[in-house]
Order: sequence, then structure tokens, then C-alpha cells
Amino acid sequence: MDQASKGMAWTDPNCPVARAADMVGDRWSLLIIRDAMDGAHSFTDFQQRTSIARNILTDRLRKLIAYGLLIQVDAPSGRRKLYELTDAGRDLFAVIVTLRQWGERHTFGDNEPHSTLLDREGRPLPRVLPVDIDGAAVSVDSTRVQKVSR
Amino acid sequence: MDQASKGMAWTDPNCPVARAADMVGDRWSLLIIRDAMDGAHSFTDFQQRTSIARNILTDRLRKLIAYGLLIQVDAPSGRRKLYELTDAGRDLFAVIVTLRQWGERHTFGDNEPHSTLLDREGRPLPRVLPVDIDGAAVSVDSTRVQKVSR
Repeated sequence: MDQASKGMAWTDPNCPVARAADMVGDRWSLLIIRDAMDGAHSFTDFQQRTSIARNILTDRLRKLIAYGLLIQVDAPSGRRKLYELTDAGRDLFAVIVTLRQWGERHTFGDNEPHSTLLDREGRPLPRVLPVDIDGAAVSVDSTRVQKVSR
Repeated sequence: MDQASKGMAWTDPNCPVARAADMVGDRWSLLIIRDAMDGAHSFTDFQQRTSIARNILTDRLRKLIAYGLLIQVDAPSGRRKLYELTDAGRDLFAVIVTLRQWGERHTFGDNEPHSTLLDREGRPLPRVLPVDIDGAAVSVDSTRVQKVSR
């Protein structure tokens, strides 16, 4: 666990979904992480890509650093700070991909253009599907949440 | 595309991640969807599970209905309304699972108890990993976003 998150007042402490939502369940934080994955490094990069207000961007960058998802590094010129994803931040890749694929399926018309995530050979990624340990697809209906016993 | 989302002012109209974040990139909306997947149906169910304030819960339920992710149905008794996930809402399963798995990896200590998602046989789900069409794992480094040409 990241050191910075130890002092957090979690909304629902026993639930990993809720803890993740406490840290990144915010439209702007998700877009900043998306942009960092796509090569944004400077304050100006993030601001231009999302048209986010400066004060909100400052707040979200500060939080993402406090949560251990971004780190600040000196630019090669030494004159300004750049932002880079930590390993925990980079590990949000599956979350961003599943949001992207859901958005493609449910928020675009058939002929409406959208950006696309491609592999090294330029091929779109297939749909990410949760499976059981035998490799069979699972859904809401075939899974259940086992709560922590008190 | 859902009818209700056609009139939305998208933050970043060409990006499926951003459209998804506009619709569900909110801590409370994510927790309501989580709870609906786990059997919550009534206003009281949602309120008790998340300790969410009534006015915020009312607002988020209204939005999730407007976005086509929840529908209201009459309770068998006919005296009150219940909330059910639509197909689009249920299709957020992969998003909730990847958030859960990220939360498990990065927000819990080794011996800290947390709820667990199990399949029909009571087995935890393996990690959801984005892959290319050959089945090889991909990451931030081996993928790129192709933007819409203007």
C-alpha cells in the first residue's frame, strides 16, 4: 500500500472498489491519468488536452501525487517540473481500457468517430472480459461479493 | 448510443474514456453501480450501504437514470420504486472489476481484510489483463491512442 494513502478516511474501508473510487473516482483525475498514459508530462500538456481550469488541475495533480499515482521530476532543462506516472498509476491501464471500451460501446453512434487504442502493430485491442480461473467469461450474474466478516 | 446521452455536453467528445468519465467518473455513481451489481434495489439499500447523503443519492440516481444506466421499476408491493441496472449499466462490470483489482493491489496492506469477488464455485477471479488479438498482455508502453483526424 502506498504510504500516502494510509491516513485516508475511506468511504467504505473494506471495499477495494470504494478505495479505488476514493482515489481516482473523479472525472478530472481519470482524464489526467489518461493523458499521462498518452504522453502528457507538463502542466501545460494536461491543461491543453482537457481544457481543465488551472485551479482544478493544480488540485488534482497535488492529490494524485499525494496518493502515489504521479511523481514530479525535473525537466531536462531544469527550469520546470514534469509529471510522470508511478507504477501504481501505470497499473490503472486496465481501468482506463475498460472505461474506454465501455464508452465505445455505449456512448457513440455507429458512425460517430472516436479515438482508438492500438497495439504495436496498429491493431485495436479486443474487448477486455473478466474470466474465471478456467478462462470462462463471468458477469454480474455469475459472481458474488464476499464481504469481510466482522 | 443511449438516447439520453445525445444531448450531453461532453468534456472531450472524441474520446471514449472521457465520455465514460462524464457519465460514471464520480465516486458516488461508481459506488451506486457497485451496490446495484451486488443486489441493492431500493433507495434505502443504497443509502445504508454507502452512508451517502440523501440529496446526493437522489441526484446520482436521477443522473444514472437519465444516462440510461438504471431504470425505475415498481416494487412487487406497488408502493415504492426500485432501481435496476440496464444492460448498459450491467456492462460496467469490467470497469468495476478492474477498479476492484487495482484497489486490492494498491490500497490494502498485506494482512488487511477486504471484500472479495468470487465466481459461482467460490473462487476469486484472476487478474483482468488487457491483451492484443493474439492474446499477449499489453500495457501503457505497448499501446498508443490514435486520435480522430480533423
